[in-house]
Amino acid sequence: MTTVRETSENPSPSRRAVIGWGGAGLALGAAAAGGVTAAVTGREDVATVADTGSAVPFHGPHQAGIATAVQDRLHFAAFDVKTKDRAELIQLLKDWTRAAERMTAGREVGEGAYGGLPEAPPDDTGEALGLKPSRLTLTIGFGPSLFDGRFGLADRRPAALVDLPKFPHDNLDPARSDGDLCIQACADDPQIAVHAIRNLARIGFGKVAVRWSQLGFGKTSSTTPDAQTPRNLFGFKDGTRNIAGTETDRLDKFVWAAGKDAAWMDGGSYLVARRIRMHIETWDRTPLAEQEDIFGRDKREGAPVGKAREHDEPFLKAMKPDSHVRLAHPDSNGGATILRRGYSFTDGTDGLGRLESGLFFLAYQRDVRTGFIPVQTSLARNDALNEYTQHVGSAIFAIPPGVRNTDDWWGRELFA
Amino acid sequence: MTTVRETSENPSPSRRAVIGWGGAGLALGAAAAGGVTAAVTGREDVATVADTGSAVPFHGPHQAGIATAVQDRLHFAAFDVKTKDRAELIQLLKDWTRAAERMTAGREVGEGAYGGLPEAPPDDTGEALGLKPSRLTLTIGFGPSLFDGRFGLADRRPAALVDLPKFPHDNLDPARSDGDLCIQACADDPQIAVHAIRNLARIGFGKVAVRWSQLGFGKTSSTTPDAQTPRNLFGFKDGTRNIAGTETDRLDKFVWAAGKDAAWMDGGSYLVARRIRMHIETWDRTPLAEQEDIFGRDKREGAPVGKAREHDEPFLKAMKPDSHVRLAHPDSNGGATILRRGYSFTDGTDGLGRLESGLFFLAYQRDVRTGFIPVQTSLARNDALNEYTQHVGSAIFAIPPGVRNTDDWWGRELFA
Ligand code: HEM
Ligand code: HEM
Repeated sequence: MTTVRETSENPSPSRRAVIGWGGAGLALGAAAAGGVTAAVTGREDVATVADTGSAVPFHGPHQAGIATAVQDRLHFAAFDVKTKDRAELIQLLKDWTRAAERMTAGREVGEGAYGGLPEAPPDDTGEALGLKPSRLTLTIGFGPSLFDGRFGLADRRPAALVDLPKFPHDNLDPARSDGDLCIQACADDPQIAVHAIRNLARIGFGKVAVRWSQLGFGKTSSTTPDAQTPRNLFGFKDGTRNIAGTETDRLDKFVWAAGKDAAWMDGGSYLVARRIRMHIETWDRTPLAEQEDIFGRDKREGAPVGKAREHDEPFLKAMKPDSHVRLAHPDSNGGATILRRGYSFTDGTDGLGRLESGLFFLAYQRDVRTGFIPVQTSLARNDALNEYTQHVGSAIFAIPPGVRNTDDWWGRELFA
Repeated sequence: MTTVRETSENPSPSRRAVIGWGGAGLALGAAAAGGVTAAVTGREDVATVADTGSAVPFHGPHQAGIATAVQDRLHFAAFDVKTKDRAELIQLLKDWTRAAERMTAGREVGEGAYGGLPEAPPDDTGEALGLKPSRLTLTIGFGPSLFDGRFGLADRRPAALVDLPKFPHDNLDPARSDGDLCIQACADDPQIAVHAIRNLARIGFGKVAVRWSQLGFGKTSSTTPDAQTPRNLFGFKDGTRNIAGTETDRLDKFVWAAGKDAAWMDGGSYLVARRIRMHIETWDRTPLAEQEDIFGRDKREGAPVGKAREHDEPFLKAMKPDSHVRLAHPDSNGGATILRRGYSFTDGTDGLGRLESGLFFLAYQRDVRTGFIPVQTSLARNDALNEYTQHVGSAIFAIPPGVRNTDDWWGRELFA
């Protein structure tokens, strides 16, 4: 399915030509495009290129943006709720849902950038006009502070939505942490992701304020088993051993929350977001052998110590005890397994002549108490990588289940 | 020409498959891919998609990255020179040139991420491995402070490399302004642009330090006449009336510097970079009619007031006297004409619940005294847009001519 962002009235000639263009030819064309890329790059980008323009369905039992094949770019925003009025918050969530339905389908918000009266501000900010949906997904989350009593939700907080413990070496900036709500916007075109967050912020004006936001320029994980594994800013393949979006059994077991803890979370998930500063300048002066020891994998191929290929099963005892992969592996943490979906960032410089770079780490799981927390407890204590990284922002969110249809809305079960 | 980033030894099977893949098939494939996109989007992305993976030649009379069709993403860095040793600076410029030659061709720096000894840090940070050149261009510039006498260059400063005057409403942050050197990295993949800056910074360790850097996520101008004009964060098409990279006459007249002022600048250019904060939240509450009056163009089509199509000739007198296009037009500024090559940015939030968004404005010209300065003098005084924008960073650089061949290096004529 490839659609093009439509306007409310008088599509321009180029857009009209597109809409009139037949489905069969399109499919053929897309296949050809995929084939080209496959030939050029080996095999890796097939899915990306063939699907770049397409739309990801918004409705379903789970929210999109979790098991969805990871898009190239991210804009993530955490919001503080400013209104004290429960009804106003509910109305905002309904308005956001309708806007998200439209934007993920490649349509403008409301009547669009030109709809309505010239004396009124446009319903859409316009910078995504003429662009394709770019696989945009919008995923909402509810932070612990939303359940503090302001909105009559105190008894609805799921036990799994814990306050994260303080880990050794954490150096968290409150201005980059927490939030009542979050929206994760992923798309293959950053203009589309930024447009989506910006329009949701615009719709929420006066009711919510952006607390912090993060742009991610390159995915560091893949949830597509046959795709080339992307590399993080330490130059290593990242996401080799991850849960694939197609592994429904493992998704059910490790990612999708059950309703027993809080019925409204049935089919949802829990998200931990960590802004992790990476000291790339120090890393870049570290010998290759040491870099490889730290991860327990080789740099070129990504193979575990003593093995030949990236996807060979790691033999943990061959790795140094403080290596990242050994410590993070489920076998070292009572089976704890998370779905990683992080992005690299570079936000200018730090005032000390160094690039302000790192990993915006995103992990989805069924329960953080058996997911992120045990893994990070072990990593924070012993990981050899800690010499090169620092956690500077942190947040946790309950991710409600998907919006079922055009009558449903984000958080309906929570506010029921 | 589509190449794939090669490693120094043992290319992996997928990469080998690529290299063995024939040129004829590739051309055919690329054409097919272009055709698909053209069909999907109207006509606009043809060049982008067909060329996304390709390499832009590094050598030539002018540096690439000025007249080159604008790539999608930017990483721009300004550096302070820390060494006081002229010979060391010259050696760095030579090393940078060799690294730039390799990276723009899609190759790793030096022996690469795995070359050399395991006890030594790798020669390349590795995160671009397996990625295509993505039309990477690297463009160097020399700031006024380089000519302050430290390197015996005081008498080589071109008269056109002026200190920019302070304009009304300027609110410049010194930490985001100036610099002894700059590198503009443009590519269709941000990972490629970030990788290039990071590796140049790594090579320069101890000799230069990053003073400030800016990531641009979406181009706001086009220098390709037949491409769809991109939209800026105010939702308007930006770059409609620009100098196209194919207009050699206008490039010679307005962009390429002559040698009469300083012989070493023959074939170079002058760059003005301005970080312009855009108050998108205020803009988004402004009526459509007012938005259109401010620019003097309509939002949908981008047509000048009273005209039907984007590329119709503007009739300035039909526009409000304080409209941006009327004030910026060459006819209002004694013919002053610049080549714009800016990028949108979103750098988190400003602590007041607003997105820190704007335009990283880049303008190339033969002489800033007859280019940026007269235009900005008129805009800073009267532009209706000023209510929604603020200039918060500023820098000017002399952009030397191109590197001719593999013996030449960035700045050879300057240090001759
Ligand atoms: C900047 C910080 C980090 C970097 C650069 C990084 C990098 C990597 C790399 C290169 C791998 C090996 C390839 C793979 O299987 O994906 C890996 C594996 C893994 N990492 Fe990280 N990581 C970071 C932080 C974290 C954090 C904070 C956690 C969780 C608390 C984590 C959990 C994991 C897990 C679960 C694996 C897979 C282990 C296995 O099953 O073999 N990582 N990481
Ligand atoms: C955030 C700040 C700015 C925004 C949003 C903006 C946006 C625009 C837009 C939408 C146009 C009309 C389409 C086009 O011909 O490209 C335009 C034209 C133009 N702008 Fe800007 N601009 C900004 C700042 C500047 C600055 C600082 C300068 C130079 C000092 C400048 C110089 C020009 C020029 C020369 C034109 C073409 C005028 C003509 O020949 O018709 N702009 N700008």
